[in-house]
Amino acid sequence: MNLSKLDSAYIAGFIDGDGSIYVQLKPNSTYRYKFQIIAYVVLYQSINKGIKFFEEIQKLTNHGYIRVRKDGIAEYIFSKVNDIEFVLKNIHPYLRLKKEQASLMLDILESKKNIQNSKDFLDVAGKIDKFYFMNYSKKRKNDAKYVEKVLRKEKLLTP
Amino acid sequence: MNLSKLDSAYIAGFIDGDGSIYVQLKPNSTYRYKFQIIAYVVLYQSINKGIKFFEEIQKLTNHGYIRVRKDGIAEYIFSKVNDIEFVLKNIHPYLRLKKEQASLMLDILESKKNIQNSKDFLDVAGKIDKFYFMNYSKKRKNDAKYVEKVLRKEKLLTP
Repeated sequence: MNLSKLDSAYIAGFIDGDGSIYVQLKPNSTYRYKFQIIAYVVLYQSINKGIKFFEEIQKLTNHGYIRVRKDGIAEYIFSKVNDIEFVLKNIHPYLRLKKEQASLMLDILESKKNIQNSKDFLDVAGKIDKFYFMNYSKKRKNDAKYVEKVLRKEKLLTP
Repeated sequence: MNLSKLDSAYIAGFIDGDGSIYVQLKPNSTYRYKFQIIAYVVLYQSINKGIKFFEEIQKLTNHGYIRVRKDGIAEYIFSKVNDIEFVLKNIHPYLRLKKEQASLMLDILESKKNIQNSKDFLDVAGKIDKFYFMNYSKKRKNDAKYVEKVLRKEKLLTP
């Protein structure tokens, strides 16, 4: 099931205004390549109007879940690959501020599906670096260079 | 010229996410009824991406102006009656969170055009009270009751 064009344009506007598209690497030794790829798309709203509103949008999308943060902000979150792909593919044509992030995120998720070895994983880490620099300028810890160092140390990458 | 449905839905989403629809009364003794009606619709964005983005939207709407606040937030503002009516009439069908505010704002602007005496002005002040209570619960100073008091004191309202 797809979203209508008008609903997609509305959600694109909302996410450009008060939403996030984000992907990061988190160290996790239980994962094959020692880092977990965490990705999400989130819409924010005060709890006051947010819950009912997000439930309406959720009925349109049939994807994602709603949670309330301790600080009283309601979040509508897409975090499963399938959910993120659904929402981003629908709203991509209408995004203006976060269009590039959406494209790169879809590319990252697609690449992630095809990871067969540590080199593939490193390529994805490189794309996540690119994503990060699209949003911020300062360096972060878990960049591809650091991932490479860990993979070599763990003898997961040779030579 | 009207906005396309898709552009209207996008702007509705953006305003629901990160915009304001607002109207208030401000004491001003140079005005006929001693209070100025100040109304606006504003879109917010960080200066970083905001200026170029708002210029794009402005090309679509041909209404409103852009300014940069001292704290680095870019604002795209509709404050003339004609500009507010243009944007709200276009986006109204697609608004979800701020639909009621938009309806009442359009009603207030229409009533404002037909003010012929202080009683008409008081009616508009009453609608602005309603607008205020739609957004906040606490009492404010320049409510219709206070306007009435001032108009009586100035002998603009009898008996």
